[in-house]
Amino acid sequence: MTERNRAVVFHGTGTVKVDTLDFPKLEMPDGRKAPHGVILKIVATNICGSDLHIYRGSFPVPDGMVMGHEMTGQVVEVGSDVEFLKEGDIVSVPFNVACGRCRNCRAGRTEVCETANPEKACAAYGFNLGNFQGGQADYLFVPYADFQLLRFPDRDQAMDKILELAVLSDILPTAFHGLIEAGVGPGSTVYLAGAGPVGRCGAAAARLLGASCIIVGDHDTKRLELVRKAGCETIDLNQDVPLTDQIEQILGEPMVDAAVDYVGSEAHGLGKDAKMMDPAAAINQVLDVTRAGGATGIIGVYGPDPIAKSKKAQEGTFDLDFGQAWIKSPHVTGGQAPIMRYNRQLMMAILWDRMPYLREMLNPTVISLDEAPQAYADFDKGSDLKYIIDPHGMIAK
Amino acid sequence: MTERNRAVVFHGTGTVKVDTLDFPKLEMPDGRKAPHGVILKIVATNICGSDLHIYRGSFPVPDGMVMGHEMTGQVVEVGSDVEFLKEGDIVSVPFNVACGRCRNCRAGRTEVCETANPEKACAAYGFNLGNFQGGQADYLFVPYADFQLLRFPDRDQAMDKILELAVLSDILPTAFHGLIEAGVGPGSTVYLAGAGPVGRCGAAAARLLGASCIIVGDHDTKRLELVRKAGCETIDLNQDVPLTDQIEQILGEPMVDAAVDYVGSEAHGLGKDAKMMDPAAAINQVLDVTRAGGATGIIGVYGPDPIAKSKKAQEGTFDLDFGQAWIKSPHVTGGQAPIMRYNRQLMMAILWDRMPYLREMLNPTVISLDEAPQAYADFDKGSDLKYIIDPHGMIAK
Amino acid sequence: MTERNRAVVFHGTGTVKVDTLDFPKLEMPDGRKAPHGVILKIVATNICGSDLHIYRGSFPVPDGMVMGHEMTGQVVEVGSDVEFLKEGDIVSVPFNVACGRCRNCRAGRTEVCETANPEKACAAYGFNLGNFQGGQADYLFVPYADFQLLRFPDRDQAMDKILELAVLSDILPTAFHGLIEAGVGPGSTVYLAGAGPVGRCGAAAARLLGASCIIVGDHDTKRLELVRKAGCETIDLNQDVPLTDQIEQILGEPMVDAAVDYVGSEAHGLGKDAKMMDPAAAINQVLDVTRAGGATGIIGVYGPDPIAKSKKAQEGTFDLDFGQAWIKSPHVTGGQAPIMRYNRQLMMAILWDRMPYLREMLNPTVISLDEAPQAYADFDKGSDLKYIIDPHGMIAK
Amino acid sequence: MTERNRAVVFHGTGTVKVDTLDFPKLEMPDGRKAPHGVILKIVATNICGSDLHIYRGSFPVPDGMVMGHEMTGQVVEVGSDVEFLKEGDIVSVPFNVACGRCRNCRAGRTEVCETANPEKACAAYGFNLGNFQGGQADYLFVPYADFQLLRFPDRDQAMDKILELAVLSDILPTAFHGLIEAGVGPGSTVYLAGAGPVGRCGAAAARLLGASCIIVGDHDTKRLELVRKAGCETIDLNQDVPLTDQIEQILGEPMVDAAVDYVGSEAHGLGKDAKMMDPAAAINQVLDVTRAGGATGIIGVYGPDPIAKSKKAQEGTFDLDFGQAWIKSPHVTGGQAPIMRYNRQLMMAILWDRMPYLREMLNPTVISLDEAPQAYADFDKGSDLKYIIDPHGMIAK
Repeated sequence: MTERNRAVVFHGTGTVKVDTLDFPKLEMPDGRKAPHGVILKIVATNICGSDLHIYRGSFPVPDGMVMGHEMTGQVVEVGSDVEFLKEGDIVSVPFNVACGRCRNCRAGRTEVCETANPEKACAAYGFNLGNFQGGQADYLFVPYADFQLLRFPDRDQAMDKILELAVLSDILPTAFHGLIEAGVGPGSTVYLAGAGPVGRCGAAAARLLGASCIIVGDHDTKRLELVRKAGCETIDLNQDVPLTDQIEQILGEPMVDAAVDYVGSEAHGLGKDAKMMDPAAAINQVLDVTRAGGATGIIGVYGPDPIAKSKKAQEGTFDLDFGQAWIKSPHVTGGQAPIMRYNRQLMMAILWDRMPYLREMLNPTVISLDEAPQAYADFDKGSDLKYIIDPHGMIAK
Repeated sequence: MTERNRAVVFHGTGTVKVDTLDFPKLEMPDGRKAPHGVILKIVATNICGSDLHIYRGSFPVPDGMVMGHEMTGQVVEVGSDVEFLKEGDIVSVPFNVACGRCRNCRAGRTEVCETANPEKACAAYGFNLGNFQGGQADYLFVPYADFQLLRFPDRDQAMDKILELAVLSDILPTAFHGLIEAGVGPGSTVYLAGAGPVGRCGAAAARLLGASCIIVGDHDTKRLELVRKAGCETIDLNQDVPLTDQIEQILGEPMVDAAVDYVGSEAHGLGKDAKMMDPAAAINQVLDVTRAGGATGIIGVYGPDPIAKSKKAQEGTFDLDFGQAWIKSPHVTGGQAPIMRYNRQLMMAILWDRMPYLREMLNPTVISLDEAPQAYADFDKGSDLKYIIDPHGMIAK
Repeated sequence: MTERNRAVVFHGTGTVKVDTLDFPKLEMPDGRKAPHGVILKIVATNICGSDLHIYRGSFPVPDGMVMGHEMTGQVVEVGSDVEFLKEGDIVSVPFNVACGRCRNCRAGRTEVCETANPEKACAAYGFNLGNFQGGQADYLFVPYADFQLLRFPDRDQAMDKILELAVLSDILPTAFHGLIEAGVGPGSTVYLAGAGPVGRCGAAAARLLGASCIIVGDHDTKRLELVRKAGCETIDLNQDVPLTDQIEQILGEPMVDAAVDYVGSEAHGLGKDAKMMDPAAAINQVLDVTRAGGATGIIGVYGPDPIAKSKKAQEGTFDLDFGQAWIKSPHVTGGQAPIMRYNRQLMMAILWDRMPYLREMLNPTVISLDEAPQAYADFDKGSDLKYIIDPHGMIAK
Repeated sequence: MTERNRAVVFHGTGTVKVDTLDFPKLEMPDGRKAPHGVILKIVATNICGSDLHIYRGSFPVPDGMVMGHEMTGQVVEVGSDVEFLKEGDIVSVPFNVACGRCRNCRAGRTEVCETANPEKACAAYGFNLGNFQGGQADYLFVPYADFQLLRFPDRDQAMDKILELAVLSDILPTAFHGLIEAGVGPGSTVYLAGAGPVGRCGAAAARLLGASCIIVGDHDTKRLELVRKAGCETIDLNQDVPLTDQIEQILGEPMVDAAVDYVGSEAHGLGKDAKMMDPAAAINQVLDVTRAGGATGIIGVYGPDPIAKSKKAQEGTFDLDFGQAWIKSPHVTGGQAPIMRYNRQLMMAILWDRMPYLREMLNPTVISLDEAPQAYADFDKGSDLKYIIDPHGMIAK
């Protein structure tokens, strides 16, 4: 093929541009042949809050890297060791790159694949985690395709529901993972920190899981409105009232069964501290509101952050109220979600219409590749939209 | 108190009558004092398919036993070792009698309490399992009340939703248990054998759990209609087509992730065998339709049945297609449900309106104690109603 | 390579011979290229009780099939899509063939791989399950090698402990799986039906798991002696005493927490029925002795058996005492073990000397390929040895 | 009874004395009758590292409180609602006070009982957690006895193994809980921070669980010697070498599957920082050495500590390297152990001689009540003994 590949490319903090690159090859980042790989024509590729970490400089990546890790695509080329996919299949790409052959992948822990990025045991497209190029582009190389890709059973049905299915590559399973690790099930009472796209997927997933009282906290009232309309409770974190008091007003008890942080280290404080960034604020919030015997998920992204204010935060050390929480027997899980553990089941729930509220909560908007740089700027300012890039104009308006 | 206790009493196969008995005492069946017990004024007490086993003679009980094991009541008297309940509380009674003190109860296995019925390690009200009187009556003695009873948080709210809350004592958690043991979760495909009240609760619970394709099979089209209207698929078992073929037509695959038998040993065959009773039919059905790697729940009641046709079935031995299923790695769980493991969470789901479809699927009808004998006769013929007895006329029409 | 491949080949019921065949190719049974495969030089390949099913005609296979599914080997050739293995590696082969790419493999259910044998969702070497040739041979083709093979960390250490490591391909993880499914852990009381090589591995694995009272039942006193010497209790099933009475004498209680059937459909009865084959005897035994709230594993092989006496057993239908067991809330798991879920951990336990009793319980004997036919005949008569074939004379005497 | 009760009583930081008190009554701390309670004659009552927190002033308690929460006793008086215990029974007392009736107890979370100490949802004997008097005394009141107490099946057998059974009330199940929460099972590689009595029980429990490579780190070489002799690996934390390097030397890999902190906030640094207290040191150590995909238990005690150096530590806030760990998908559990979840099984393992190494690792010494004050002083200085008080001289020398 002689086709070129237009893509959203990182050019230093605060700058992304659409560049024209070579068409991808069935090759690993280090140049090895990848007979297990495929080339996808991208159908939908979303902008994620994690992309903003790169955009803002919190997560350093090399200039010239293609952005994006949330991809849905159509198979256009298959390697010689691809047995179960064929050209034309519409597939969802889990954002974690995983070999399916190492100890962790064998155990279903694809978020910590030992071989795709041996340096850190964690690989992803469009990050500085294994040198895999991102998917905000016309075309994408995906290795270990038989293992990794989720094929949609029917092409037409998939294109009909593409705006919901598009979030299977990351934020819906990611949000779901946080709930599962926090023990959410039928009847659970839940507090979710953050009403960005992941937090909103968390609220939708909590409904799917049968949670009873679902409370979402954020500083942005437009975002909160999206979850309130879908039957959840909300807390405006600008109010200068202890969070447990606000929960008690809603629930009759000051703490919940399960709490999940969907914010990460860019968190702000409560009430009078709402303007102040505090990288530990969201973790301490969710530890604070989880009842004794409950559980907590830390799905927001943490790590050494070179642009953090304090030297400690730059090194990935945070002031955590763990001593206050210890008496409650905290059960805390952090890290990226193993997307493959959940994406098939969530696809089934979407295809059988079990999440009728998802689309409204998500608030998706479809844009072209050329509109992506502006979308980054808007999303950086706190837009309540979920941006879905449609490079080839395949999504019906 | 000098009040008397009117109750639905067993008087031999096919006969129940309303008798007037003594007011219950805080005493165990063997006459020991029960300082841990309470007396309840019954608010709602349902007729269950298991009551029909007694009524039909499949499950022998002594003449004179009060029927009923699905009770919701108001506390009117508390023993000296009851610390956390007080007069006026509205509570749901789990149908299993459980001490909360033995090895099994400590492990949450209240369906196999070792002390409430030491002979069999399984006790229940209104059965020949530990000699506890049933609750289709004005009043009921409940032992181990602090441990066993589920208190509704607010009396008015409880009375508003009493028709849904009434099934927390048995059939909703029982149906839910079958799903959990069969591994049902978000996105699961499910086959449920039986659209009686428990099967219909199973369909409702599968929705709460986020299952995708929920298929219910029965011979009774009126019962099937109740689940179809609530968004489930149905299979009429009178059709002479292999079940896996019928599932394939609905799902695109011949087998499901999870299948649950809500029928028990009174099962009938498929198609041309629909008129024929076959005590192993429902188990073999669910084994047959569960995919390799899936799981199966056997919630329908099995046991030695003195009125079964074959001597083997009378002894509790059945012709099971286990050798055919073995290659699929079957995972099978049977037995009664430990109601306490689920009732609080399901109550929360009801109180927060997460099961809006439950009432219509259940199809409840409220009757008086005096109407109970007729209701037994009608239910025995396959009514699609769920009979809820309201002895004191407390339920708003 | 022009080398030939000598192998133990099935030639009709009761006959195996050593034939000389072509050297294996990197090809699937249907002739497709297998870039994901390797060729192994066999270091150790054991004779298993399941091989006897074939030998006796219970499990029909085509004449000419190479026998054997318990292999340890040295990599001598790798396909173009093998990334993590290299020539010279010593590896254990899980007996189940599994692609690592289908839904079940992704979920760790390699015993029900959907693609390696699409007809039944269960594939194995040396069986009529996917047409894969067995490994009682000089050389073996193994597909999906990166995914499937367990590499021993150090060649010399592996060769030192090869007699223990050789059972990682099947019987030790298989036995372990039965215990895990039956809920065995520290302090559990356990009954194991069968003291053949799998049952003896079960006794060893129960010790590793920290079980307290480990009781093994068999009709063969020589086999029982092997487990008694290693600190387990034994029951001679020729005694005409109910099993629960015999357990009570040992344990003080008539039932155990967990029971596992390591026998399968070639079971015999108890006491006066000891001479009589009863295909349901072992299942009913373990159901009978499992306490209410306990769990049961059915690891012995079941299936339609063309040489069974009854027509029902020929079709895979058995008389199970499930109705008697139902009141105890039985939890039953059957099927083949997903070897990959356990083999790495068990390897670690062996390498760190945590199973010092394994070798004596196993009672291994090393033989040549040419001695294999005689070993089949001896094993068929109930030898208490575990036969390990060493085709190339690599195992130190 | 007119007998008096001699007991080890707290009299301010650094001082415990043996006082003579009134014989205990069947009464709760607030004076309510406790028909569910019993009085125990103490057979063995151990001094625990947690007692040192009180002794040193880290955990403030009122003057006059009886110390001790690790008790084994003989029932000498039973309340009117005690059904399953009788005078003469020898029992182990779980250190957590738990009602068996609240939501958390019903779910087996007895370490966070909601009613025994409503203020904090966590109660214990001999702590400022619910005002229950401790058990370093002749006699002890235990509430909710049927639910809480673990009866030993045979008195003589119990007295024979009393030194091992004595640790069932706290440190053996506590240590075990840490391992379970960290996912330890057969073959696991394990790092245990701390070789005090709990850490040594952790090493013993890891052996029972079948762990492969068990590495224990401490600054005290005498304590390390006790675990090395029992077949574990050790690391002297005074060495100025990164912990992951030391692990790599032993294991061939720098990180382990599971790591447990048995130290708490009185931790010291590594190598050149070994003299320096750092309340977050042990947590950060175990986070650091847990592999990606592994899990971590925080069993050492954390909380607001009024005598900590920093104001943050006084409030229970610590500098945790959570941002460094996040990429590894940390799974962290803290808090007290629910003793009842484990003590019966561990008792069975002891009674069936499955922990022959326990006694030597524990290094118990039996003392009288009058020797207790000196034992506190010696233990405070880092003795490698486990002190077991025998108030009535019942333990055979």
